Amino acid sequence: MRHIRITLVGFGVVGQGFAELLVNKQAYLQKQYNLSLTLVGVANARHGFIYREDGLHIPQLLQLARQGQSLTEHPDIQHWDTALEGLRATPANILVEASPTNLRDAEPALSHTRTALAQGMHVVTANKGPGALAANELFALAKKHGVQLRMESSVMAGTPVISAIREGMAGASITSIRGILNGTTNYILSAMASGRAYANVLADAQAKGYAETDPTADVEGYDAVAKTLILAALVFNHPLRVEQVGRQGITAITREQMQAAIDSGKRIKLIASLHQTAGSNALEASVKPLALPLNDPLARVDGAMNAISIQADTLSEVTIIGPGAGRIETAQGLLADVLACVR
Amino acid sequence: MRHIRITLVGFGVVGQGFAELLVNKQAYLQKQYNLSLTLVGVANARHGFIYREDGLHIPQLLQLARQGQSLTEHPDIQHWDTALEGLRATPANILVEASPTNLRDAEPALSHTRTALAQGMHVVTANKGPGALAANELFALAKKHGVQLRMESSVMAGTPVISAIREGMAGASITSIRGILNGTTNYILSAMASGRAYANVLADAQAKGYAETDPTADVEGYDAVAKTLILAALVFNHPLRVEQVGRQGITAITREQMQAAIDSGKRIKLIASLHQTAGSNALEASVKPLALPLNDPLARVDGAMNAISIQADTLSEVTIIGPGAGRIETAQGLLADVLACVR
Repeated sequence: MRHIRITLVGFGVVGQGFAELLVNKQAYLQKQYNLSLTLVGVANARHGFIYREDGLHIPQLLQLARQGQSLTEHPDIQHWDTALEGLRATPANILVEASPTNLRDAEPALSHTRTALAQGMHVVTANKGPGALAANELFALAKKHGVQLRMESSVMAGTPVISAIREGMAGASITSIRGILNGTTNYILSAMASGRAYANVLADAQAKGYAETDPTADVEGYDAVAKTLILAALVFNHPLRVEQVGRQGITAITREQMQAAIDSGKRIKLIASLHQTAGSNALEASVKPLALPLNDPLARVDGAMNAISIQADTLSEVTIIGPGAGRIETAQGLLADVLACVR
Repeated sequence: MRHIRITLVGFGVVGQGFAELLVNKQAYLQKQYNLSLTLVGVANARHGFIYREDGLHIPQLLQLARQGQSLTEHPDIQHWDTALEGLRATPANILVEASPTNLRDAEPALSHTRTALAQGMHVVTANKGPGALAANELFALAKKHGVQLRMESSVMAGTPVISAIREGMAGASITSIRGILNGTTNYILSAMASGRAYANVLADAQAKGYAETDPTADVEGYDAVAKTLILAALVFNHPLRVEQVGRQGITAITREQMQAAIDSGKRIKLIASLHQTAGSNALEASVKPLALPLNDPLARVDGAMNAISIQADTLSEVTIIGPGAGRIETAQGLLADVLACVR
């Protein structure tokens, strides 16, 4: 049996989902992978960093979180005021970074990631900030310290996309990627395709929890842009700045435009595109609504599902459709990355 | 730079495609992976096994094959009468097995694979025989000798399927798989959906080279059954015998049945299914034509494209669509597996 020690930074929806998965998958991981994963450190912004060398009791942590109590109520722990201090002071094999995404400067995830990599820890993250804003620096740091930095969950949650392209299609030169990378806008556009108006569908999506109270990051395309930046860096090895991605959201799409698309046998989708111009080093990137013919594999991906189509020199087109968000779906991607680190 | 020595057994369409890819990708592999792949041994059934310690000259081998000359015309080689003898006598890191599939006893691929694994060579294969008929034995042998056995190309060519499930979705418990795993039948069914009769479409497919002169293996479902056996063993860790897969081909489908499906908003597809019954160890397997509603992600996969939908405990449904055959597409899968072996 291999024993791997994990530190988890961020204990919100995703972090708690991952912790729960560790409990639920314990027997399965031992049987299938001869592997024991122990959660030794946990941090969140409010309560700082707690550590227990022999492992924390996950059900108790989940209960504390549910009841709004401090994680420091866990017995028999060491405590630091911040995740960064705790990370520096305690040993573990892998950092699972699940703090909230910040697309301005990627903090605090960026500092957590840098610190862990520099200490020789693998880093697995669902956070879009580090990959979108600092991929080059972080992958160089990981390489220098002989560890992995993985971020499957940052694009389409646990649906295998980054690993399928970088590893499953290894050796292929990717020429083009198109994706439906945001579930909220795809839910809204799918509902609009049945004749409803944008404002009406948005209110409904907010009531159901599919859209945030302030939906700007989704409906104006910023979330899809962040994922586009991650794919530019990880798939094309060509990091872009946010200003280099043409961006147009879905807020101006009218019922009339939607109907006109349907009448001509098309569906409007918010499409993230990356296209490598033949014979040059240029990488064109955009996020914008496009009317796709029904024989396009992305045209009928509806609701909260996401999808990505990849073109390569050796494979005409590969399309991957799957969940793009969700507590357990995102935790699944973190777990797959953890298993890749220890493989 | 890492130097890896490869032996290639089978120098037909797939083997030549792989050899060509080694030439075309040489600079790319050096740049992206700091890797040099050298082809040291090549065998086919007619000319036996040739070996050159410093590497064979691939363009020359391809020219000999094109001109119908013996591979033994290559200068400065050692020669053995059979692949098996050559494999035993010569060192290499990886065997790429691309001999023709034989679903009766998997030979000669099975002996090549056993021999290479037992010598501590990784084995990468596009051949369906070994995985369909002897997966348990071969994976145990690979484990014993600390090497990998990979067969991405045996299901949907280079479209990442086996790696996406086993590695990209690592940690997930797969509950169900449904796939369009045979391009010939999907081409025929897609053409029949536009009103043409089976016999007419088959003749057309044969003329275009999409169907064999004897189309039995495709149209009666045997090829899809072999891929189903591979997925049973590799994804569910539950090898089945061929008699355990219910099989029905497409030869009896009439224009009337096709039209009735279309009239009720459905499409008939040849679907390979594997379903793990909850709470039991039973694995149900079948290959048969099914009428799928248009909102099924497999319903609109047309022509020679293949697709697979995977359900798991942590991911509702992931669908992967891509090429299911082809010379370079299959070689791409072999290359991805080679890169996974040296990772």
